[in-house]
Amino acid sequence: MSFPPDRILLGPGPSDVHPAVLESLGRPLLGHLDPAFLPILDEVVADLRTAFRTDNAATLPISGTGSAGLEAAMVNLIEPGDPVVVGVNGVFGGRLAEVARRAGADVHTVERDWGRIIEPEAFLDACRTHDARVAAIVHAETSTGVAQPVADIGAALGDTDTLFVLDTVTSLGGIPVEIDQWQVDAAYSGTQKCLSVPPGLSPVTFSDKAVAKLKGRSTPVQSWYLDLSLILAYVDGAGGRTYHHTAPISMLYGLHRGLKLLLEEGLEARWARHARLGGMLQDGLVEMGLPLLAQEGHRLPQLTTVGLPDGVEEAKLRRQLLDEHGIEVGGGLGQFAGRAWRIGLMGHSASERNVRLVLAAIADLLG
Amino acid sequence: MSFPPDRILLGPGPSDVHPAVLESLGRPLLGHLDPAFLPILDEVVADLRTAFRTDNAATLPISGTGSAGLEAAMVNLIEPGDPVVVGVNGVFGGRLAEVARRAGADVHTVERDWGRIIEPEAFLDACRTHDARVAAIVHAETSTGVAQPVADIGAALGDTDTLFVLDTVTSLGGIPVEIDQWQVDAAYSGTQKCLSVPPGLSPVTFSDKAVAKLKGRSTPVQSWYLDLSLILAYVDGAGGRTYHHTAPISMLYGLHRGLKLLLEEGLEARWARHARLGGMLQDGLVEMGLPLLAQEGHRLPQLTTVGLPDGVEEAKLRRQLLDEHGIEVGGGLGQFAGRAWRIGLMGHSASERNVRLVLAAIADLLG
Repeated sequence: MSFPPDRILLGPGPSDVHPAVLESLGRPLLGHLDPAFLPILDEVVADLRTAFRTDNAATLPISGTGSAGLEAAMVNLIEPGDPVVVGVNGVFGGRLAEVARRAGADVHTVERDWGRIIEPEAFLDACRTHDARVAAIVHAETSTGVAQPVADIGAALGDTDTLFVLDTVTSLGGIPVEIDQWQVDAAYSGTQKCLSVPPGLSPVTFSDKAVAKLKGRSTPVQSWYLDLSLILAYVDGAGGRTYHHTAPISMLYGLHRGLKLLLEEGLEARWARHARLGGMLQDGLVEMGLPLLAQEGHRLPQLTTVGLPDGVEEAKLRRQLLDEHGIEVGGGLGQFAGRAWRIGLMGHSASERNVRLVLAAIADLLG
Repeated sequence: MSFPPDRILLGPGPSDVHPAVLESLGRPLLGHLDPAFLPILDEVVADLRTAFRTDNAATLPISGTGSAGLEAAMVNLIEPGDPVVVGVNGVFGGRLAEVARRAGADVHTVERDWGRIIEPEAFLDACRTHDARVAAIVHAETSTGVAQPVADIGAALGDTDTLFVLDTVTSLGGIPVEIDQWQVDAAYSGTQKCLSVPPGLSPVTFSDKAVAKLKGRSTPVQSWYLDLSLILAYVDGAGGRTYHHTAPISMLYGLHRGLKLLLEEGLEARWARHARLGGMLQDGLVEMGLPLLAQEGHRLPQLTTVGLPDGVEEAKLRRQLLDEHGIEVGGGLGQFAGRAWRIGLMGHSASERNVRLVLAAIADLLG
């Protein structure tokens, strides 16, 4: 393998990784039960609680990518036959519904066109109508660039039997995520978005209400690998450290360092940085006459979907951006395939220099 | 995080990682669809085929640890109600049975005491008696140090409807693994044992017979994350590169480099190195008067279970070995808990220097 070519990662993830995180990945290994490793794991868990704004005991990194976290959230909380309501306005809502179906749920979707939000009242109506055991929605739809309003959903479900599951893969560390204040019962994220750590781990957090449901299950969790109670027996020092699977040490070094960088900058400061630079990018694209595809007022600063002029060969132009400018952006998916780009400004990638570079490159290519 | 303390990893995994692999982990990221990344993935797949000694098209690294590979092998091949036979003579046989149960299988176990093999004829008898759809056994039991004879099982099952699943987590790269010659239908491994790459990926391979069963399923695979047909749509370049989940780029860099080191040394040479050094360690332990717990004639060179003298406080002595000598070994599990150690000599850890060091340290501690 030759050394990777110079890239600026402005796609939907992975984002560029800080050199300090890359350095940490290359450190010599420790065993997953080494007394010198366990404090690192403990710090990862504590820092994840800070990042998620939660006191949830059941907070930990799943040994898989964001989609493994999604599956963990769903299969731990769903029992066969459970009515489950899922909001679907992009790829990742669709994935939630699919995972719920495979877990044997009775799935009801609330669907909206790509680029539109799901009105919280409509989502809550569906939860009530179907007496949902689990209600799942995506906070930051990576396929559309939509920021879903979710702040009031958890409160409305708080006194019911419904567990509120939130996909924070692209939101955590990019825009405010308030697990406790919003009464979210299970959330999952990915390391490779606004946390700016390589892909491979999925931070998750489960509320006490969710853990109670898990403990009261009458059927085993269908996945052994993602069974939260078994994983907690290793991560949670309180009851000893029961081996479940071999922890991915190097990736945990990386997440540890990435979370320290996040907390050194400060959550609010990082949110503000994303907001400022996302706004700068979106203003620049609009000035160029390009349409933004996410509903106005609900645009993610860290992930922008932008339409391309008619007649442009999307994949060819995107390859040119990569080859001539060394900049990676994402193509459109689903309803946006072939006619849109997804431009990410996440974590270490979210810099004024990168906004200027990508705007100049797009102007050059479309020139 | 301070720099990790000096350790020599002679436990049941992770093993020590070659500096070239550590260096590769710290390289800047590429996107998982970057034209500069895809050849790396293709080489990983090709080199895994060489390591597994197979031509199986369906060969790839699962984005999780060895236990995720175990679950992938079972849930892709099992449909609810399928009779499944599992050999259980240690932790990992037990885990196979548990995962099969959670997949809805009708599970029949063939059990033996820890440290003993399962006679292939007894295993095959059970497969015939129960008309097994899947027959799963562990090649190298990491909990007992037993090398299970498996060479003739696949041939006996070849003309039946039974799919032969083999756990090669600790065997791959350490002792001969011959997927095609042995007619194995699904095998999985881990990166952190004899491949000497950090934990976090699970190489898997599926035969055409297994893929045919997968394609003919009447129920969906219960796991979306581990659904082989969906993963193959990304890994297999033939049908384009359909996004499934974000590939763990840094870990794939590491596996890529680790496989190159394996193939540069040569599979046979690495097997021979493990055989020679494992023998040297086992001879040394016997000379010290310590009992080997795996059945004679079926001892893994890369993982030795050794009994401790009566009255020795196992955990305390093991901690002393770590603190005073910087050497990690594993404690006993299950039937061996509290009275045995597991000493690994895997991949980069398998050196004459390490054998001398650990023997001298044990003599010193027991002195």
